[in-house]
Amino acid sequence: MTRLFGLTVTAVAVAATAFAASHANPALEGAVKARGAQMTMISYHTGLLGDMAKGDVPYDAAMATAAAENLAAAAAMKRATLWIEGSEQGAVEGSRAKAEIWSAPAGFEEKAVALEPAAATMVTAAGTDLEALRAAMGGIGGSCKGCHEAYRGPRN
Amino acid sequence: MTRLFGLTVTAVAVAATAFAASHANPALEGAVKARGAQMTMISYHTGLLGDMAKGDVPYDAAMATAAAENLAAAAAMKRATLWIEGSEQGAVEGSRAKAEIWSAPAGFEEKAVALEPAAATMVTAAGTDLEALRAAMGGIGGSCKGCHEAYRGPRN
Repeated sequence: MTRLFGLTVTAVAVAATAFAASHANPALEGAVKARGAQMTMISYHTGLLGDMAKGDVPYDAAMATAAAENLAAAAAMKRATLWIEGSEQGAVEGSRAKAEIWSAPAGFEEKAVALEPAAATMVTAAGTDLEALRAAMGGIGGSCKGCHEAYRGPRN
Repeated sequence: MTRLFGLTVTAVAVAATAFAASHANPALEGAVKARGAQMTMISYHTGLLGDMAKGDVPYDAAMATAAAENLAAAAAMKRATLWIEGSEQGAVEGSRAKAEIWSAPAGFEEKAVALEPAAATMVTAAGTDLEALRAAMGGIGGSCKGCHEAYRGPRN
């Protein structure tokens, strides 16, 4: 009887989660897609710079500067429209945002904002020379990792 | 015989297109995905502003300003990293970019750049009041439409 009750409670909890994920507010779904787009812009431009840093693509000061400027623009996007409360992992399909982003926002803000100075440093470095570009890569990767380790949930 | 020859040529052309689309350079595929992300950022933020303009969502000066700033940032992204030659519709899966973007770049530049002053106008308008926000919507929609009508191909 106890076991049966436990199974019933589990089944109800699973059904409730499925309901929440499938009936998410379109505004929250839009925010999750827009965050994904922001991450795509950041990873694409970091990849362009990384390919030059590794020597897979010839260093090109103008292209590297454009990549760093786009990376900086994506990093500086206002979080108010993107990180809308209620759009955490489990509540909206595709979201990997931990609930701590909203329950303890100061910690998230500190990690999220770290990409901005790292990207600003890259804007200058990217147009200087390949050595400067390489030296600025660690700041980009470190700020990505810092926020993801603390505030990104497991793969869906 | 003539008809058979025609069919053979068609089959070869279809096979060549399929080959080109499936073996696209990862750099070109990345650029197409990043352009899609840029368009998602633009449409998401235009949608937030449009929902307020229509009265579907209450006017909120701070949220409207953040949306307009993110729209302006997405519009101002450097085209050098995104509109890479060879990433036109037919050459890369998912691309709807017409070949004229590269064969007649001045015309594209004129249409593409039009969103920047429209978005800058919206940044000021969005924080002023609902009437100003509404008045600035036409400039956003018109610049989207102007570029899409001229340089975006049919749905894939």
